[in-house]
Formats: sequence, C-alpha cells, structure tokens
Amino acid sequence: MIIMKTDATKEQIEQVVKEIKRYGLRADVSRGAYKTVIGLIGDERKIPFDHFAVLPGVKEVMRIEIPYKLISREYGKFFEGVSEGMVIKVGNVRIGGDEPVFIAGPCAVESKEQLFKIAEGVKTAGAHILRGGIFKPRSSVHSFQGLGAGGWEAAEEALSWLSEAGKKFELPVITEVRGETQVDLVAEYVDILQIGARNMYDQDLLTRVSNKGKPILFKRHFGAGIEEFLSFAEYIAAEGNKNIILCERGIIPIGKGKSYTRYTLDLGAVPAIQKETYLPVMVDPSHGTGRRDLIFSMSCAAIAAGASGLMIEMHYNPAEALVDGPQAITPEELKEVISACQRIHQLVAPRRTEN
Amino acid sequence: MIIMKTDATKEQIEQVVKEIKRYGLRADVSRGAYKTVIGLIGDERKIPFDHFAVLPGVKEVMRIEIPYKLISREYGKFFEGVSEGMVIKVGNVRIGGDEPVFIAGPCAVESKEQLFKIAEGVKTAGAHILRGGIFKPRSSVHSFQGLGAGGWEAAEEALSWLSEAGKKFELPVITEVRGETQVDLVAEYVDILQIGARNMYDQDLLTRVSNKGKPILFKRHFGAGIEEFLSFAEYIAAEGNKNIILCERGIIPIGKGKSYTRYTLDLGAVPAIQKETYLPVMVDPSHGTGRRDLIFSMSCAAIAAGASGLMIEMHYNPAEALVDGPQAITPEELKEVISACQRIHQLVAPRRTEN
Amino acid sequence: MIIMKTDATKEQIEQVVKEIKRYGLRADVSRGAYKTVIGLIGDERKIPFDHFAVLPGVKEVMRIEIPYKLISREYGKFFEGVSEGMVIKVGNVRIGGDEPVFIAGPCAVESKEQLFKIAEGVKTAGAHILRGGIFKPRSSVHSFQGLGAGGWEAAEEALSWLSEAGKKFELPVITEVRGETQVDLVAEYVDILQIGARNMYDQDLLTRVSNKGKPILFKRHFGAGIEEFLSFAEYIAAEGNKNIILCERGIIPIGKGKSYTRYTLDLGAVPAIQKETYLPVMVDPSHGTGRRDLIFSMSCAAIAAGASGLMIEMHYNPAEALVDGPQAITPEELKEVISACQRIHQLVAPRRTEN
Amino acid sequence: MIIMKTDATKEQIEQVVKEIKRYGLRADVSRGAYKTVIGLIGDERKIPFDHFAVLPGVKEVMRIEIPYKLISREYGKFFEGVSEGMVIKVGNVRIGGDEPVFIAGPCAVESKEQLFKIAEGVKTAGAHILRGGIFKPRSSVHSFQGLGAGGWEAAEEALSWLSEAGKKFELPVITEVRGETQVDLVAEYVDILQIGARNMYDQDLLTRVSNKGKPILFKRHFGAGIEEFLSFAEYIAAEGNKNIILCERGIIPIGKGKSYTRYTLDLGAVPAIQKETYLPVMVDPSHGTGRRDLIFSMSCAAIAAGASGLMIEMHYNPAEALVDGPQAITPEELKEVISACQRIHQLVAPRRTEN
Repeated sequence: MIIMKTDATKEQIEQVVKEIKRYGLRADVSRGAYKTVIGLIGDERKIPFDHFAVLPGVKEVMRIEIPYKLISREYGKFFEGVSEGMVIKVGNVRIGGDEPVFIAGPCAVESKEQLFKIAEGVKTAGAHILRGGIFKPRSSVHSFQGLGAGGWEAAEEALSWLSEAGKKFELPVITEVRGETQVDLVAEYVDILQIGARNMYDQDLLTRVSNKGKPILFKRHFGAGIEEFLSFAEYIAAEGNKNIILCERGIIPIGKGKSYTRYTLDLGAVPAIQKETYLPVMVDPSHGTGRRDLIFSMSCAAIAAGASGLMIEMHYNPAEALVDGPQAITPEELKEVISACQRIHQLVAPRRTEN
Repeated sequence: MIIMKTDATKEQIEQVVKEIKRYGLRADVSRGAYKTVIGLIGDERKIPFDHFAVLPGVKEVMRIEIPYKLISREYGKFFEGVSEGMVIKVGNVRIGGDEPVFIAGPCAVESKEQLFKIAEGVKTAGAHILRGGIFKPRSSVHSFQGLGAGGWEAAEEALSWLSEAGKKFELPVITEVRGETQVDLVAEYVDILQIGARNMYDQDLLTRVSNKGKPILFKRHFGAGIEEFLSFAEYIAAEGNKNIILCERGIIPIGKGKSYTRYTLDLGAVPAIQKETYLPVMVDPSHGTGRRDLIFSMSCAAIAAGASGLMIEMHYNPAEALVDGPQAITPEELKEVISACQRIHQLVAPRRTEN
Repeated sequence: MIIMKTDATKEQIEQVVKEIKRYGLRADVSRGAYKTVIGLIGDERKIPFDHFAVLPGVKEVMRIEIPYKLISREYGKFFEGVSEGMVIKVGNVRIGGDEPVFIAGPCAVESKEQLFKIAEGVKTAGAHILRGGIFKPRSSVHSFQGLGAGGWEAAEEALSWLSEAGKKFELPVITEVRGETQVDLVAEYVDILQIGARNMYDQDLLTRVSNKGKPILFKRHFGAGIEEFLSFAEYIAAEGNKNIILCERGIIPIGKGKSYTRYTLDLGAVPAIQKETYLPVMVDPSHGTGRRDLIFSMSCAAIAAGASGLMIEMHYNPAEALVDGPQAITPEELKEVISACQRIHQLVAPRRTEN
Repeated sequence: MIIMKTDATKEQIEQVVKEIKRYGLRADVSRGAYKTVIGLIGDERKIPFDHFAVLPGVKEVMRIEIPYKLISREYGKFFEGVSEGMVIKVGNVRIGGDEPVFIAGPCAVESKEQLFKIAEGVKTAGAHILRGGIFKPRSSVHSFQGLGAGGWEAAEEALSWLSEAGKKFELPVITEVRGETQVDLVAEYVDILQIGARNMYDQDLLTRVSNKGKPILFKRHFGAGIEEFLSFAEYIAAEGNKNIILCERGIIPIGKGKSYTRYTLDLGAVPAIQKETYLPVMVDPSHGTGRRDLIFSMSCAAIAAGASGLMIEMHYNPAEALVDGPQAITPEELKEVISACQRIHQLVAPRRTEN
C-alpha cells in the first residue's frame, strides 16, 4: 500500500502506477478529497519497497500481509467515510447504514403473475429489495433449473418481469448470475448481481461480474473458511469494484446422523468478518436453516449478531413453490420478522458504535 | 411408551414394570396427578406391544422411534407442566423459565482470593449462578490442569471455596466433573454438575452423574450432530434424572486457513433442539468464539435465537488468567451483556409463546 | 429409463424421444448393437410411465430414483462393454482398463523450456499423460495465476507448447479449464479437459465443456459429499458426453490445530464410487496431501484401494516451482512410484475382477 | 528435554528430577545402556533452562515445543532401538516390527460359543490377536450395550471367556475399556487395553489405563485432528507407559447428502503420524467404512500407506451379529485380506526403510 502526499500531482500518481506495473503487479487507486492511496494487486514480495518510498509524491509505503488487503479495515481506514464501515447505496436503500436492510422474494421466479403477487407482499411487509431466482443453481440436473434454463429469450423475459416488478413496487431488484455468459444480460436488468455459494470460488466469473460496476451480493461457500471467503471477495475488489455485500448462508453441518438444519448458520462469522473488513455483511437464514419454522429465531439472532440485513425467501403459498418451498415464509410472517429485527437492531447498534 | 388409565392402581403399574423387565428392558415411570406414563429403556423391538395393551390398567401403548424418546416433546407432553418446556429449579433460579439465566465465573479457580473477587463481580453484574473450573479438561498434558490435578485434598479445598463463595454471594454454583472418580466428591459441594464437551460420549460418566439426582449441565461435543447430542442426553435421562440443561458451545470450524473463531457457534441448533425436546438449552459464547471481543454480539444472538440462558467466562483481569484469558470479559462488560440480553429476550419471548 | 425392443425401428425410437420432450424432459439415447436404451433427463415424476410402456417398440420402462442415473451402474449395465466399467481411450492410453494410468507434469507451465524438460522426465519415468496448468485457480488474487492470466495470446502460446510437448514425447495432454470463455480455446489444443475442484459446482461450465465431446477429468470439490460429486458429473453426462474420469483429490481436513496434510485424501470414496458408477476413478495424491514426502505412500494406497490411475505433480527441481513446489516429486521418484503401483495393481486387480 | 552425560551418576539424575519437581513439573526418565534422557512433563516455560544446563551430570538441555514431545521422533531418537520406530511386544506378536499384525474378532462378545467359534476362525485365517467387545460404547441407550452392561459378574464371565479363548488358540487378546471403574477388572484378563474413539479425550481414563503398564491400543476420535490425537496419546505417555499403539478408524464424513461410508478413513494420517512419532500406527477399516464390501480394498490401501497392522471385525455369520454386522467379514474373506496385505507389505516396506 502506497500513501501519496496530500499535494501529490496526477503525474506523480501515474508514475507510481507505472512503476507498479513494471514489476508485474496491478494498482488499485483510491482518490480521496485529501489524499490518494494506491493498493498493490499481486505478489508484493516482488516489489522493492525502498525504491517506491523515495518516488516523488510518495508519503509512506506499508506492507499488508493478508490475502484480502483491498477490502481490509487497515486499507479502508484511508478512504473517506468507510472507517466505520462502507455504505453501499442502491436506489434509496443504504446497505451497511443505520438501518438493517431486508431482501425478500421467491427462491425461483415461476411466472409473471407469481412474481408480481410476491413483490406486492414484499413491499407490504416492509422489505427493501426484491429477489427472484432465474438461473437456479441446483444439485441435480433432474430438478427444475429456473426459467433461465429455457434459453436466452425465456431468461430475458423473466428478467424483464423482475425489472418491471421492481419499478412498480419501487424496490431495487437482485438475481443470481451463475455463469460468465449470463453476466451481460443480467446486468442490464437488475440493480444488484448475486454470486451464489456454489460459485464463490469461480474467479473468472467474479472478475467478469466486477467489471459491470454494479453492487454485488457475494455468498460464502458452504465449505469455505472466513479467510477463503474474504480472499475470493478480493478477486472482485481487485477489478476495481468495491461495492461488495458479503453474505453468510450456512456451512456444511457436522456430525453423524440426521441433520436438523440444512446448513449450519455461522453467525459468529458476522462480527468476526466485520472486524476484518469494512464491507457490509448480510445473512440468509432461509438457506442457512432450510426450515421456515426457524426463520424468525435465526433472523433475530443474525441481527443481534450485528448483520447489516437479511435475505429471506418469501412466497404467498410456500407449499406450491417449485423450489425450496419448505424454507419460505409468508408475507405476514416476514412483516413480523422485520418488525422484531428492527427493534433488536435499535438495542444492539448503539453499543457497537461506542466501541 | 405406555400410558396408564387414570385409575390404574400401584399394583397394576408395578406389574407393567415387571413385564417390561422380563423382556430385558428398563422402565421410566413418570407419575402425574392424573396419570402415569411409563417409558421403555432399551430395544423396543423386543416388546410385543399387543401383549402390553391388554394388561390391566393400561390405557394406550405408543411406539416412539427416536433414539432420545425420554427427553422428547412427544413424551414430555404427558408430564404436567412441561408441555411448554421443563423448568429446572436450582435454589431461587429457574432455568427454562420466563427469564434468561446467566452463569458466570472464571474458567479455572486459581486461588480463594481470585474466586471470591470474581464471585463478587458475578453478583454485582446481575448473573445468577457462579461457575469455576477445578478439574480442567485440557488438550495438552503440558498445560495447567486445574487445582483438582493437585490431588484429592487440593480438589476438595477448591470445591469448598466454590461452595463458600456461592453461599456468601447467594449464587448456586456449578463445576465440571471430568471422570467417574470425581463424581461423589464434586456432588457434595456444588448445585449443578457440568459434563464438558470432551466427555459428552462418556456414557459411564453420564450414568454415574445422573444417579446423584442433581441438575446436570450437559455440553455438546464439538464434533457431534444434534441427534448424537440428544441421544447421549438420553443416557442421563435413562437413569431417572431429567434435570438436564443442554448447552451448545461450538463445533469444529470448517474450511482451510486461519480460524477466526475458536469454534463455530451453532445457534440454529438452539431452536432446532427446542422443537425436539422439553429440556432447556443454554449457550456458551466464551468457548464458542474464544474471543472476548465477540462475546457481546454472540450473547445477544444466542438469546435472540431463543436460548434459556448463557454461560460466560468472567475475570476481573482477563490478561492474568491462567486458562482461556483471551475469551473472558470483565464484570462491567458482563453487566452490559446481561442488560442487552434481557431486553432482547423481552422482545422475542412473546412471539415464541404464541406459536 | 426406457429399454427398447431389439427390433425397435428408428422411427419408434424417435417417437419415444419426441414424447419425452413433450413432457418437458430431455432424452439420452444409447444405441447398442442389440438394443437401444433411453435415459430421461429431468424430473421423472412428471412422466406417466404407464403411457410410455405401451408405446410401439418399447420393451420395458424402469424408474431410477438416484440423482446420477445416467452414470449409474444400473444404467450402465445396458451398454455394451461397460458392465465391468467403462474404458476411456485417449490416443493409445486406456483409462479404466487393465493397467493403471499415470498423469504427470508441472503444476503450472512456466516456460517452454521448463515444460519440455519436465515432459521428457514424465516420459522417461513411464507415465502416460502430460499435465500442465495454464489457467491456475488460486485462493489469492495476489498469487501467480498461471500464464493464461497474461491474456489470450499468452494463453494460446502456452497451450501450443503443451500440445507440441505432447506430440514430441507421444503423450496425450491435459490442462484445466477454469471458466466458460476458455473452453473453445483450450479444447483446440488438449486431449483431455480438466475441471478443477473449485469449479465442480459450476454447472454452466460443465455443460459447456461436455459439448466439446472430449474426455473430461472431473475433480471432486473439497467440501462435496460423494452424492453431490456424482450428481454434478451427471450434468456432464446429461449433455451426451460420458467420457468422464472422476478424480478424488482430498477433502477439507477436520479437527482443531495444525493440519499435517493439506487435504484429507478420501480413499474410501474410490471403491464406494466404483460401486455406484461405471466411470473410472483416479486419485491426485499431490493436492490430496500437499507433501512430497507422502506421495509414495498415498500413491500406493490409492492403487491398492482400486483407483484406475493417478495424477501427480512432477518437477525436475521442485524447489524452484512457482506454484505448489512442496508437493512435487522428481522424475526419479515418479519412476519408483509407478513401479510400485504397477506391482500392487497386479496383486489386487484379480481379486476385484472375481467379485 | 535434558540429556545426561554418559557417566552421570544415579544421584545426579535424581537431583535433576528433584529440581524439575521443584518447578512444578514432572519428569520422564528414560535410561539407556549409554545415556539417560529426562523429558519434562508440564509447562516448560516455567523452567530456567540455563540453570539446568549447569547442574552436575547434565550434558545438554533442549526445548521441544510440540504438545506431544514424549512420543515424538525427536525424543525417541535418544532411546535405544526406537529410532526406526518402536516395536511393542505382546506375547510372540511384535507390533511395529517387520510384519503387519492383524487383530480380528467379533464387534461384541455375545456368548462363549460364539466367541470360541470366531476365535477359531481368527486363528485359521492367520490373524495374530483376538478382539472381542464386552463394554460396548453405543450411540443409543436403547441399543445392546454389550455383556458388560449386565453387571460386574456378567462382565467378568465374558472377560474370562476372552482370556480362555486367547489361551486355547494362542492369541493375545484385546478389549475396550470404556470407563475408569472398568480398568482394574479388564486389565486382569486381557493383554492389550483398548481406548475407543469416543473416549479419546477422556484424560482421567487415559491416566488410569496407563498406570496398568500394559500395551494400549488408542483410537483417534472421529472429530479429532492429528495434533489433538497425539496430544492425548501424550497423556498416556506422561504416566510412564509408552507402549501405545495408535489407531486410525475414520473421521466424520463431509458434505451434504447420503454418506456412502460410515466414516472417512484418513489414510494420509498414517504416514503423516509416522513422521511425527515413533509409535506404531494401525488402521480399523471396519469402523472406518462400515461396509464389508469395502474391507478388502481399504485393508490393502491401509497397508500400502504404511500401517503396521489392521483391526478387523470378523463373524462366521455377519447377518446374525447383534452389533455392527454389516461391517463384519467372514473367516474366508479375512484370510484373503491377510494374504493380499502381506504381499503388499513386502512390496512397500523396503522402499520405506531406505528413506
């Protein structure tokens, strides 16, 4: 990390970037009102730090030895307004701000009618962002793969419904991108691009998605440790897009015998990640538990643990959902979850701000 | 499970028990004001259920096919006052009742002075039960093993301090029993016997401890699934002692690389276990995270998830603790945790009672 | 699964396929010398089996309820010559045949000279296929990403070296494809396409790769159970390409503390998978252990467990390798491994054939 | 670790031990023909090493910073005859010697007749040691708990059968000790005491068992990492008994969905452990897989990985076994396993000796 002097000129900054490239690395330039900070992307050990320290305009040179330095608190404290955590704005919604944010909607979009009916429920319940799966990652090729599997035209039609529903109910929209070839199309229609847990390690997809410049909701793989999760988020940041919303959605359950929850929601990861990075952290209790009767408890727990918001599957009639019905809740239940979570947030937030 | 008629005589009950023994099983007899229920301990498949259905005084015969039937909600709904969950009384403290219960104290008792100083802090902070480790389970023989390792006299002296501190500050006390030979001694001095995670599978110890008739705090092993955890709690119940407080304390972290929390606190297990059993469930965020800076968040999260209470390590000076200092909080921090948890409990409890 | 009569006509087969499509499913048509078998791809529950049973030319209709039916032994027993396991031919090499097959080479191609020097060692040691990574999946964006990261031209140049080295030393070649956009280019130059562990869940990549028609070496993700692994291999088979070589390469280590092997090689998965599918199973002891001093032992163990071959990282000077040097062995060591494995194979193979 | 001079007197050794105790640690004194080595048990950081270096008779003082130093190769290289690995003698059987050792028998002793019939098969098949479970650790209190659960008399009777069968067929015998109160009784009747996986963490039991001075077969817990496993073996060694046979028996399977093997046999642990300690390592493929159809493959794999022997469940009629029938093999199958393993051992052993 190279911190430029307050009066460093554009030319001096460019020269530093040029030098960085000469050593085979890339540069992440963050210009603030008062100072410019340049992060190094690549193997820092190749860099003669002494040489950079004496370049014109350079104030200080620091090594950050962690694999996720561009998203680290250490790096973030040099950015304006992110020392307390970055706020990501999507329309009127502020993720990582003073209020918890709720993303809700169907696991899979099944028809225009289904989507609009659910979107209305999402709005009424008080949620802020509409989700709807179009390209569904499934563990069996013999299951319903989402409308996106019906070809590009079917995919585009479903995307247009999502976009339209978002406009009608004044809700930003989000959907998952599962492969590189879907990125351009999806980015035209949605406000936030989601990378699912199964694609967390897919560095080419991360690079491609980052380049769109839109906010990205990035889910932790169910077999990934926290360090891996942050190291792959770094792939997104390294392309210049730091509008990354991290999302914990459960890890592989341990032990023999029947699993009572589909995954093990790792809520300790929420504050642990927040100590490491300035990015907001959300939680998906629907996939994390796989059980609608646990959503209320685990939503409250996630917000109490300090999550910036939740992503919840909702359906007006969970029993008839084609995908993941057993984990969806109704609009009425969602409203109750949101209300309880907002009150818990008010209780715990002041304590955290103090420290 | 055999449900006796309301007017079944003592002799009829005895005859059923005798018949059960004849088939090589044991009987768990629960006498209520209106009816008596008899649980079967052993392999039910050996039992000719038709034969039992026609014995005098028998109203109904039901199979329960789960490995933890004596502690199951299905069995509990026949007991008076436990259909909504069992309340375990220890002195004036009610575990599983209307208020969350806080157990606090040092990881290891180091001296009488240290213990009394901490006990005072526990009381002042508003906690209800005093903990203090005397026989410490440690992963290395080369680490401090607790005062209990100094021989029976040293162990008894430390136990007497614990008992004395409890009386002085009007706090019931709890300590861990690590082996069968310690049971009799420990049971003389404490109000609750703790079985640590590493001994969860130790069925001979469970049997021995159960026979003391005192409440038992039973911790989940860090590699155990929920079904295993409940199946081993059943070993305690099978000896006739159902005063069992279950305690989630974290499972083995998953994934490669640095572990940011010592264990992964499985808060989803709290409501999942509550759907299965009438026993109260507590959480130990100290071992679950291993980080004092996460205790506040994870305590709030545990209570929000529905836990009946918390077990927290406290020290007036965490830096000088011989064991697990990095995860202990101060009395002031404990007070803040308790206050936040009580307010969260008030928010979430009514919603759960409704359902 | 629909088994056609021996004398079913082409038209009758086409009619069945047409009917299958009418119900929203796809068909996998396997024509043998004597009979044709049609597998169903999609949700079989939508299909009125009775209706199909009476279509002209249909002999029998069978349900297979597992999520990997197209690669199952149950389905395979209707194909000619695969009842004992499928043999995949690549040049003169037969994977899954009578002899174990050895794939060796550098983790990452670094230069033409390095590659050719290693290729010579691979040939001399007696291995059969040359591997060389060009697009490297890495857990940190700050590490060397392979020559493929230098742009399409650099990637194509490295691919041409690999192809040239293969021709010179008469070794088929294999490299990893990490993203959809790389598939066309890579398929032009190599004989086998590798899907790495981190991409196992990447169903769009699997579909794209399958369509090339070339053999695919498919690695198990380190957090995936066997059922998941086979269910994702089914995504490849569902596109019509059954030339799939499964590869076990280690799962996430369990437990606290220092990890003595990088991953836990799950050798029990080898015979367990072989009972389920007709596809050949190989093992990668290099990634599985991450330690060159364990390669000999774990190679012998893998072959003893019944593996059809091994994939091993080799370097003439492991200490200077840019990627994964600590797990590479020398040509001399490789020769010794191959010799021991061939003798072990001779010992265990006859016993397995009998059963 | 303190290395005494060749000519150190008994008094000088005693003085060193006395000094060690003065600092609150214990001493492990290993007297060899030429020199005496003293290991420290406890927290070495309390010791002023400089002070010890100048005591009379002391040649050298070395720190070993690992938690399993008494069983480490580093410590073992000062013992005579164990630099290449320790050989544990039980009757005529040499565990850790030139030949692999096979322990076989029923999971649970059910009757004298059953035991003798199986013992004969064990002998005929060519195995060396007879196993038979009397106190069975079970995951459900409602399952058969072994004859030991029938009271001390029943336990002693079953133990006497085991002892008698061992004498009749000239096979040393082994059984599991599950709790402290069983130790004295069991030690009277058997040649090797087994600590099961579920009791691995039970440090009081380990201490108690160690004091009997007999060889101990010590199984790895299914949730334990290698470092934990060795650290708990150190509890046994710290009591002065180093006749410890380590046994890998499978760890918790990872991933979602159906588990194809009961546990995941971690064969990479075999050579990894052998690099760390001089103790012999055996493998239990019966519990490790839970499937009789995988025993042959995994037995061969374990020996190929370098195991010193195997522990296998055998029954003349697996279908009628009360416990774990699905994983038992017949005497004929055992013979075939032993024969293949012996030939594999001959192939791999010379290579390992060279290095």
